[in-house]
Amino acid sequence: MIVNCVYIHVNPDKVGSFIEATRANHLETVKEPGNLRFDVIQQANDPNWFMLYEAYDSEIAAANHKTTGHYLKWRDTAEGFMAEPRHGVRYNIIEPNNRSEW
Amino acid sequence: MIVNCVYIHVNPDKVGSFIEATRANHLETVKEPGNLRFDVIQQANDPNWFMLYEAYDSEIAAANHKTTGHYLKWRDTAEGFMAEPRHGVRYNIIEPNNRSEW
Repeated sequence: MIVNCVYIHVNPDKVGSFIEATRANHLETVKEPGNLRFDVIQQANDPNWFMLYEAYDSEIAAANHKTTGHYLKWRDTAEGFMAEPRHGVRYNIIEPNNRSEW
Repeated sequence: MIVNCVYIHVNPDKVGSFIEATRANHLETVKEPGNLRFDVIQQANDPNWFMLYEAYDSEIAAANHKTTGHYLKWRDTAEGFMAEPRHGVRYNIIEPNNRSEW
């Protein structure tokens, strides 16, 4: 199981549009069989910064996500709302170490 | 509902001890009534860096966590394993926006 944290800086006038596009991606991503979480969170002291907390049960599941129609649609739409390129940080999971707790 | 992301840089020779102490904190924190998640994750390209992904159903629940015996024990133990002071980032939750999905 792995986590990708994706940090995204959105142009202030595009925050609403970004949330709309990302919400749609969330709703489809959580239906993927290998997806464990796809949380969309907004930084409290700077609402132009978001983080996607994406957990998958394998590297393959994470890679598969990037081939889905909803991801590709999100990418092509949401990149236009970003103030700079997003960046991701890959994590291994210590806890919960049981898949059923995800 | 809120998320606190806590970024922690651990001294290389203390990584095992840090994991042990933080696992104990995880196991107790997830029993708190206002806790939604307490994920412990380790950066894939630098195993000395960890993130705690802590979700609570309210600010009060997040504050209450810091009064618990398991938090105080973790703090007093784990701070000795850190290479520099930890830092936290507070987030508001966009999705999942239904508590039952946490």
